[in-house]
Amino acid sequence: MSLRYAERMTNMNPSALRQLLQLGADPEVISFGGGYPDASIFPLEHLSFVFNAAINDHGREALQYTVPNGLPRLRQQVAERAATVGIDCTSDEVLILQGGQQGLDLAAKMMINKGDVVIMEDPTFLGALAAFTPYEPRYVTVPMDAEGMDMAALERALKANPEAKFIYSVPEFQNPTGVTMSLARRKSLIELANRFDMIIIEDTPYREIRFQGEAIPPLKSMDTENRVIHLGSFSKILAPGLRLGWAIASDEIIQRMTMLKLGVDTQCSTLNMKAVSLFLENFDIESHIVTIRQTYLRKKNLMLETIRQTFPQQVSFTEPSGGLFTWLTFPEGFDTALFMKQRALPEARVAYVPGAAFFANEPKTNHARISYSTQTDEAIVKGMTALGQLLKESI
Amino acid sequence: MSLRYAERMTNMNPSALRQLLQLGADPEVISFGGGYPDASIFPLEHLSFVFNAAINDHGREALQYTVPNGLPRLRQQVAERAATVGIDCTSDEVLILQGGQQGLDLAAKMMINKGDVVIMEDPTFLGALAAFTPYEPRYVTVPMDAEGMDMAALERALKANPEAKFIYSVPEFQNPTGVTMSLARRKSLIELANRFDMIIIEDTPYREIRFQGEAIPPLKSMDTENRVIHLGSFSKILAPGLRLGWAIASDEIIQRMTMLKLGVDTQCSTLNMKAVSLFLENFDIESHIVTIRQTYLRKKNLMLETIRQTFPQQVSFTEPSGGLFTWLTFPEGFDTALFMKQRALPEARVAYVPGAAFFANEPKTNHARISYSTQTDEAIVKGMTALGQLLKESI
Repeated sequence: MSLRYAERMTNMNPSALRQLLQLGADPEVISFGGGYPDASIFPLEHLSFVFNAAINDHGREALQYTVPNGLPRLRQQVAERAATVGIDCTSDEVLILQGGQQGLDLAAKMMINKGDVVIMEDPTFLGALAAFTPYEPRYVTVPMDAEGMDMAALERALKANPEAKFIYSVPEFQNPTGVTMSLARRKSLIELANRFDMIIIEDTPYREIRFQGEAIPPLKSMDTENRVIHLGSFSKILAPGLRLGWAIASDEIIQRMTMLKLGVDTQCSTLNMKAVSLFLENFDIESHIVTIRQTYLRKKNLMLETIRQTFPQQVSFTEPSGGLFTWLTFPEGFDTALFMKQRALPEARVAYVPGAAFFANEPKTNHARISYSTQTDEAIVKGMTALGQLLKESI
Repeated sequence: MSLRYAERMTNMNPSALRQLLQLGADPEVISFGGGYPDASIFPLEHLSFVFNAAINDHGREALQYTVPNGLPRLRQQVAERAATVGIDCTSDEVLILQGGQQGLDLAAKMMINKGDVVIMEDPTFLGALAAFTPYEPRYVTVPMDAEGMDMAALERALKANPEAKFIYSVPEFQNPTGVTMSLARRKSLIELANRFDMIIIEDTPYREIRFQGEAIPPLKSMDTENRVIHLGSFSKILAPGLRLGWAIASDEIIQRMTMLKLGVDTQCSTLNMKAVSLFLENFDIESHIVTIRQTYLRKKNLMLETIRQTFPQQVSFTEPSGGLFTWLTFPEGFDTALFMKQRALPEARVAYVPGAAFFANEPKTNHARISYSTQTDEAIVKGMTALGQLLKESI
C-alpha cells in the first residue's frame, strides 16, 4: 500500500523514536537525557487544592469548551506577571499554549513556506527543529560563545538572507548549552531585527530558574517595534504534565496564531487553565520558584563537582547560572552517540542526549547534553561517577 | 513592518474570529451555535475523585512528562473499548490526542502537500477544513443523501483523482447534517478505498451518542487493508475541557503521527490522561453514556417539536438518530448569515452557525446548523420559538 506521505516529515526517524520510548521505560538506566524537572518538589498539595476547587466550584465551566485563545483571567495573570519583567502587554496580546512547544509549531505554521530561511543558534533546541522541520525551511546557523549568539555572524547571516522569516533564540540557559545571552548582545539583536525588518522568536522556558547572578531583561521588554514573539511555559515553574505555556506578541500575530490553534487542537484544557489560574490566585508561585532555584543550584553544584572529580580532563563542560543543563565537549573525533550505545548504556547504565541532534546543519559528534534536574542527588553521584570512570578508561 | 506570513492560513479571517469570541461571551444571546455538550450532566463527583487520586496518589508521575504517544494504560483501555465495536488493535496502534481535532491536523501534516486532493463530504465538518486548509490542499466534494456519501459520485471522484491523499468522513450523526452512513455504503466505501489504494479518515466524535436505532459497525472494523485512520474523542462522552481524544491506525501511521506530535506539543496532559484512565478503571462510563443519550434524545425531541410548531413550513430539518445537531434548509436564495446578523441576533437574541462555512468549495447560503445539546430545555423552547416567529414574519 502506498501511503503517499508528504515529504514533510520530522527530523527524527521511527527507530530513533522507538529507542527514545524504550529508554524512558527502562528503570535500570539512570537517564540524564530528558529535560525533566525534579518531580519531588512539585507542589502537590496546592495543585490538589486548585483542581478540587476547579471541579467542585467551577466544574460546569471548567470542563466545558472555552475560547481558543485561553481563559481571559489566566491571560490577564500571564500579562501581569510579564509586566514585572518589563513586558508591557494586554491580555489580548497573550495566547495560552499547549506548552511552549506549541508556540514553535504555530509560529512556524504562520510563517514558513518550503525553502524559507530560519536563522538560529548553533547548536539549538532539538524541539525547535522538530517543530520547524515539517514546514521544510532552510536553516542558517549562527555560532555562539559564552555571551550567546555572535552578533557579527548574525549580521552577515541577515545580509546574506534578507528574506529570512525569523530569528529563533533561547536567550536564557540555552538548551542545550546552558549559555545566557548578555545584555549588550540582546540590544544588538533587537537593533539588527529592527534594521532587517525581522521577527524574533524568544523562547524562555528556563528564564525564571536563575539560581546565580542578576536577571537580564527579556528581549520582549526591549522590543521597540513589536516584532518579538515571546514564548513562556508553566512546565518548569509548576509542572510539565499540565501542558500549559503562553505566547506574548502583537495583537495581529496573536490573532493569526489563535486562528491556527483553532485548527490544530481547538483550545487548551479548560480545566488545567482554570486550575493554574486558581493557583496563581491562591498561592505564591514566586516562593515556589525560590524552592526550585535552590534545589537546582544544589544539584548543579553536585553534578559539576562530580564531573570535576571523576571525568577525564579532556572533557569540558559549561557552568550555567540557571536552567536544567550542562553541555559537555569531548575531544575532536569522539562520537558521543556511538559511545552511549556501545559503552555508557550497557556498562554504566547511564543515558544522556548525544549532541549531534542539536545542530541544524552540520552535526558535531563530540558533545552531549546532561540534565541535573531530573535525578536524585544519589543518582547524580552514582550515574556521573560511573560515566566518568568509563570515560577515563576510554579517552 | 512586513511579517512575510506564509500563504498558508486558515479558512477563517480575523474579523470572523473576533465575532466568534464576542458571541460566545454575550450572556444575552441564546446560542445554538457551538457543538457544546450539556454541562449539567458532566460527572463532576467522579471526575473530582479521579483528579484527586491522580494528584494525591500518583502526582509525581502524573504531573511529569511522559511518552509522546500517551500513557500506556490509557492506550490499552482505548484499545479494549474499541474491541467491543469490532476494532481489533493493540495499544501500539493507539495515539492519544489533544482532542479528536488534533488527529485531523496530524494526519493532514503527514499527508498533504500543497495542491494535493482531499475528498470529503459536502457539506463537511468546519473543524476539518480549519485543520486541512493551512496545508493548502484542493478539495473534491462528494454529495450526500439520507444514507451518507453518494457512492457513485465518490467513485467518479476517485477515478478523476487517483492521486488523492485521503477520503475524510464523519459516518455517524455527521457534523453538520446529522446524517449517518448506512451499512451498505460503508461496505462500498471500504471496497472503493481498497480498489483505489486510498486512506480513509473516519472521524467519530458522536458515535457513542446514538439515542435511536441500531448501531452500525465503524469503518475501522471493516478495514481489511489497515488503511483507515479512526479518530475518537472523550469530549462528548466525558468532558471537552479535558481535551483528550485518540487515533487508531496501523503501527506505521501511528509512529509517524507520534513523531509529528512530538514537534507540535510534545504530548497530551499527563494528568488528564491519568485521570481519564482512573475514571475508566473505577467508574462505569457506559452507564454515564446512557444518561447522555437519554438527555440528548429528550432535547432533540423538544427542539424538533418546537421547530414543527413555530417554524414556517418552508424550512426543513434533518431528524438525527444521535449526536448534537440538526441541519436546517431554507428556501433557495435565503441567506442565513445575513439573517442572523440583521434579524436573529438583534431581534430574537438567538445564534446558530450559518451553513456556508461547512461547504469546502461552493458555499450554499440557505442552511444553518443548530445544536440541541448545549442549552436547557427552557432555553431551547424560548430561543427556537423566538427564531420561528421571526422567520414566519420574514419568509
